[in-house]
Amino acid sequence: MVDPVLITQAGGVMYVTLNRPEVKNAMNFAMVDALMAAFEAAETDDSVRVMVMRGANGVFCAGGDLKDFSAGGKNADDIAIGNRRFGTLMERAQRFPKLLVTFVRGAAMGGGFGLVCVSDIAIAEDSCRFGMPEVTLGLIPAQIAPFVRARIGLTETRKLALTGEIITGKKAKKLGLVHHSEPTVEAMDHRLLKLLEQARKAAPGAVAATKKLLMDMGETVTPDTLDDAAKQFAISLRHEGAEGTRAFVEKRPPSWVEGDA
Amino acid sequence: MVDPVLITQAGGVMYVTLNRPEVKNAMNFAMVDALMAAFEAAETDDSVRVMVMRGANGVFCAGGDLKDFSAGGKNADDIAIGNRRFGTLMERAQRFPKLLVTFVRGAAMGGGFGLVCVSDIAIAEDSCRFGMPEVTLGLIPAQIAPFVRARIGLTETRKLALTGEIITGKKAKKLGLVHHSEPTVEAMDHRLLKLLEQARKAAPGAVAATKKLLMDMGETVTPDTLDDAAKQFAISLRHEGAEGTRAFVEKRPPSWVEGDA
Amino acid sequence: MVDPVLITQAGGVMYVTLNRPEVKNAMNFAMVDALMAAFEAAETDDSVRVMVMRGANGVFCAGGDLKDFSAGGKNADDIAIGNRRFGTLMERAQRFPKLLVTFVRGAAMGGGFGLVCVSDIAIAEDSCRFGMPEVTLGLIPAQIAPFVRARIGLTETRKLALTGEIITGKKAKKLGLVHHSEPTVEAMDHRLLKLLEQARKAAPGAVAATKKLLMDMGETVTPDTLDDAAKQFAISLRHEGAEGTRAFVEKRPPSWVEGDA
Repeated sequence: MVDPVLITQAGGVMYVTLNRPEVKNAMNFAMVDALMAAFEAAETDDSVRVMVMRGANGVFCAGGDLKDFSAGGKNADDIAIGNRRFGTLMERAQRFPKLLVTFVRGAAMGGGFGLVCVSDIAIAEDSCRFGMPEVTLGLIPAQIAPFVRARIGLTETRKLALTGEIITGKKAKKLGLVHHSEPTVEAMDHRLLKLLEQARKAAPGAVAATKKLLMDMGETVTPDTLDDAAKQFAISLRHEGAEGTRAFVEKRPPSWVEGDA
Repeated sequence: MVDPVLITQAGGVMYVTLNRPEVKNAMNFAMVDALMAAFEAAETDDSVRVMVMRGANGVFCAGGDLKDFSAGGKNADDIAIGNRRFGTLMERAQRFPKLLVTFVRGAAMGGGFGLVCVSDIAIAEDSCRFGMPEVTLGLIPAQIAPFVRARIGLTETRKLALTGEIITGKKAKKLGLVHHSEPTVEAMDHRLLKLLEQARKAAPGAVAATKKLLMDMGETVTPDTLDDAAKQFAISLRHEGAEGTRAFVEKRPPSWVEGDA
Repeated sequence: MVDPVLITQAGGVMYVTLNRPEVKNAMNFAMVDALMAAFEAAETDDSVRVMVMRGANGVFCAGGDLKDFSAGGKNADDIAIGNRRFGTLMERAQRFPKLLVTFVRGAAMGGGFGLVCVSDIAIAEDSCRFGMPEVTLGLIPAQIAPFVRARIGLTETRKLALTGEIITGKKAKKLGLVHHSEPTVEAMDHRLLKLLEQARKAAPGAVAATKKLLMDMGETVTPDTLDDAAKQFAISLRHEGAEGTRAFVEKRPPSWVEGDA
């Protein structure tokens, strides 16, 4: 029995590889559990600054494994609970307090499409295929569509979700689903390396606080959001910000850049 | 007296044509009522899977007919009630439980612009003109601006609504107002036919449930949305999904693709 | 002691220039206060129809002046109150009842980036640099990130805010942060003049009511929003709209186009 998710760590980065290549990394309950464990490990390990998620064998993820998620013999409550487990994973990924990068080759369908939508930065291959084919199977993209809507807005989500249309990485870039689309895996690697270098300049506590701020608020700005943000600013200034502003004045890199991460 | 809206049905598609060509299909109360009736008919007729809305004589819709919507002699309450009727039509179109396609030539101004904003898929002519000229008449785009904001976001909406600027189909595509912009009506037809073919693969019940899910939720994902979505998933799996997943395993099209729709 | 903000008025336009060129117009408390006073003056002066904000010496604004906003010696409450003052300015700019244009050369970082996000129309130089470098200083973009999210959405905001990445005006245009990006300052001027001409056609009361409508509502359309909008429509029709629709029928410009503004 192979591990449904492979994990390696190097240079402050946890590489998480979806690893069921025989079914194009289709997501089953075992993979959901392994991903939850990976987030748990990454959150509690201070040496991890970034998680990079990718799929084995040149494919990101073909979607939910119908054998687990759509088991026909089960009653409605069991099916709903099983479906909701994937949503819980999505919520956790969306609020992961470090940088989450998806590196997306081959295909990202259904649940795989969803995971891309909760990454801080998504790098795709031009030829990669993205889609929510659920309605063509008589199903609804239940745990995915809400995150797709939050990612690319209602206008493009309704078209993709209601027709099951497949789009390429190039088109995904145009729709704002991914941040970069590259012609080759080498160009994707190059993009990732540049990004990881940039990410090392960001203070880990400030990243966590900024991400929390972004996830706690809605699309419309409220006075409460600004009040709370001001308090968080004061905290950051008296902690990492003390070092950061001092380093800036002294024209040297702050501690987190030269740290072991 | 001509009918303000023409209706034909073929192959599971209801074609609805705004039909006041002498005033560039400007919308009056009679047209609003006829469109409400068309949605009612389409919703209750299981053979209808898609509505395609277009305008007679190469123009989509020049906007609200000032004679009806802006009748100066009426008191403020009557004017507000009349204005709100168009908003009710917009709400109904936005939540129409089947696929709504707008096919937009010539011009889509004011209320016509609004109708484009509630379609699941909009196909425009490159040269088509879009705009909300209300402020240049001393009026506000009251029932339209909210749907424009939901369609293209605050940043572009504020510019268009506050200046009355006119944009082309090509620019509308860039702003995400329409999904496709084509140089000729033949290219638009080609695009529509491809889309209708794709739409036939989608299960009607799953489309209705997915659209309801998208319209019931906000831009930010909440646990309630995901809980409800999981229940809807279980329902879909035990109904159309049973046929859809079986057809998938048996490598045959599911029943709704070969149905009379 | 130089004035931190320069103000001139001509042809219905108030030009507001951030004026601390020795520190690339970095924003300090004196500048925040001067901008608040400028908004106050512009709001109460009927001859002002548009505010154009720019920076002295070819730079828009390098961000918050760390000396004021990040004074390390102060206690947490004082720091939070100081930080929140900038948010109050942002809220006021966002709801300014006239057209707000930003004309952005050189750089718009941190708080300068924020000001761009609350303008109705932003015109940038292709080579202009935009960014939120806060996390690289160990700080959070507290009062800015919410407005950036409202401006360009969560997907691009999270990338920029969590990495401190710098982008160009050209890229800012693609992300929807600015409406126009031009290769030269002359092309920017040309764009601004065209825009001011278009803006003169818009009735001032209708602009204020439309902007209020857009700012009061969320991303999702509610019946309450439409009810309220209908009442505002009736008011507009009986005031400026009476002149506007009459001028339209009489094929002459309405009064506000030929007014002294």
